[in-house]
Amino acid sequence: MTETEDTFLALDIGGTNVKSGLVTRGGELKKHDSFPTSDGKSPAHLIELIARNLKKLWNESASDGRPKALAIGAPGWIKPKEGIVVMAPNIPGWRDLPITRLMSQALDIPAVLENDANLYALGEWSKGAGQGRDNQITLTLGTGVGGGLILDGKIWNGSFTSAAEVGHIPLVGNPRVCGCGRVGCLETVASALGMASIMKERIAAGHETLHRGDPNKIDSKIMMELAGKKDPLSLRIFREAGEAMGYVLSFVFNLLGLETAVIGGGGAGAFEFMEESMTEILERHVVTAVMSEIAVVRGALGGNAPLIGAAALLNACGH
Amino acid sequence: MTETEDTFLALDIGGTNVKSGLVTRGGELKKHDSFPTSDGKSPAHLIELIARNLKKLWNESASDGRPKALAIGAPGWIKPKEGIVVMAPNIPGWRDLPITRLMSQALDIPAVLENDANLYALGEWSKGAGQGRDNQITLTLGTGVGGGLILDGKIWNGSFTSAAEVGHIPLVGNPRVCGCGRVGCLETVASALGMASIMKERIAAGHETLHRGDPNKIDSKIMMELAGKKDPLSLRIFREAGEAMGYVLSFVFNLLGLETAVIGGGGAGAFEFMEESMTEILERHVVTAVMSEIAVVRGALGGNAPLIGAAALLNACGH
Repeated sequence: MTETEDTFLALDIGGTNVKSGLVTRGGELKKHDSFPTSDGKSPAHLIELIARNLKKLWNESASDGRPKALAIGAPGWIKPKEGIVVMAPNIPGWRDLPITRLMSQALDIPAVLENDANLYALGEWSKGAGQGRDNQITLTLGTGVGGGLILDGKIWNGSFTSAAEVGHIPLVGNPRVCGCGRVGCLETVASALGMASIMKERIAAGHETLHRGDPNKIDSKIMMELAGKKDPLSLRIFREAGEAMGYVLSFVFNLLGLETAVIGGGGAGAFEFMEESMTEILERHVVTAVMSEIAVVRGALGGNAPLIGAAALLNACGH
Repeated sequence: MTETEDTFLALDIGGTNVKSGLVTRGGELKKHDSFPTSDGKSPAHLIELIARNLKKLWNESASDGRPKALAIGAPGWIKPKEGIVVMAPNIPGWRDLPITRLMSQALDIPAVLENDANLYALGEWSKGAGQGRDNQITLTLGTGVGGGLILDGKIWNGSFTSAAEVGHIPLVGNPRVCGCGRVGCLETVASALGMASIMKERIAAGHETLHRGDPNKIDSKIMMELAGKKDPLSLRIFREAGEAMGYVLSFVFNLLGLETAVIGGGGAGAFEFMEESMTEILERHVVTAVMSEIAVVRGALGGNAPLIGAAALLNACGH
């Protein structure tokens, strides 16, 4: 009889989908599932659906033994230590929600809470493109731009237990208004949603493109297909996003002396179209002593990175 | 007979002056001295002058007992762990200089090396404007713009043992060429030297000013006097520097969740003229959850901050 490795439950709650997983202590994702966040008809109903989904995963995996703990990745403004989602803009009604207590009661195992972008970063750090580098940042290009900062091999949360708010770093001279109400934020030009908005606006303004369908249906996936066919408009928008990320990453590298930046999230599918302009800006602005030591790489784990990061978080918490 | 508190020697080597001090373990500066860096006619001669100056301070303070150790603050690119100044652009001939070994041999006490801006930050953190806040950044506005980052109450050096290179953070759209060869660095608009250069250029271009003497003699002290008399040109330049710092600090606060930024160095004398524009930018760009918690304050210790920071560094190193 071989000894069975400990397992953990993992949860990645997004505005579009709730993803769940069963992951080993070593970070191997044994099972995963997902359902649309909008299936939850109220905050309480969504909690109920999540608990039911996790129990199903657990029961299907009875042979792996009782999971030791649950790690919850949630978006928006959270308080990890208190286990509270203060506000999740994309999940209606989630305000001051004591999610770790609710899930821990429903499953009768310990639960911990972390920002979704931080879990993503822990995944790439422990098992993905950032392995072996203890000072790194992960940018996730999705509906917004998330950031997860790992310093000395640990998630950095600062004094206010918010994640690295890279998406709301201002770009001087960028006039675009962000969903957060501020002007010039990185995510207005580098998020998957921001890039699609720019594409639609420019098509309306008569810019040349190979796109022929309904501009309102454009998303980052369509843009990547177009860019693959050398569409000048989508290529240009990816190039501009790369430049913006280059400025932000120059700032981060110069400030913190990190080794690595990992670009993840759905928008990272366009990494090949953003890399050249990003590198140009980095070469121009990162201090000389550091430039030869750094790497900017595409994430290796895709959308499962937060579920894999859950194992690293629970290990670090002593579970 | 009362017990005497341990003392340390402290050194702050700048491109203009070498400052030395005798400081207690608790951070009280008991004696200090300085001499022009240009008195050293060669790299070896400068080392000799520094050793002589420290011995003089030590001998004058014989009643305080033997200093336990020396902390050296040096500018430029240094390797703190190896005790080497790799390159100090403003000190001719200092390349790959094993300064801690040389000083330790000359004085027969242990010596440690740190970036001058980091020592400044440790001073303000331990005894100055940043007391009690364990997550903070200090900007020093001098010939350049230095940065010292304190995370969890410790100097953060990153993977490459360089200080927080805040001075070379790029500002999008800033066309000014920096002494480092790159374009758009913060220090081209916010260092004392950068602000004086802008003032001279604008006088040459016919901008209105109360200044009547030789424009080539303008320095930040003259600019502060003019600003005090409501000179429109110097006020505008300080305002622009405040805006640039506001962008960089918005970035830092959003990325790291710090509590405090301390503005030090000679240029901090103009804090009152920069504060309003800096705060406007911060209010526009710092994420809401954090804005009410942060403070940007003028340094409290002036030019002696690095000598006082030396005590904090030596305490942290176990001396």
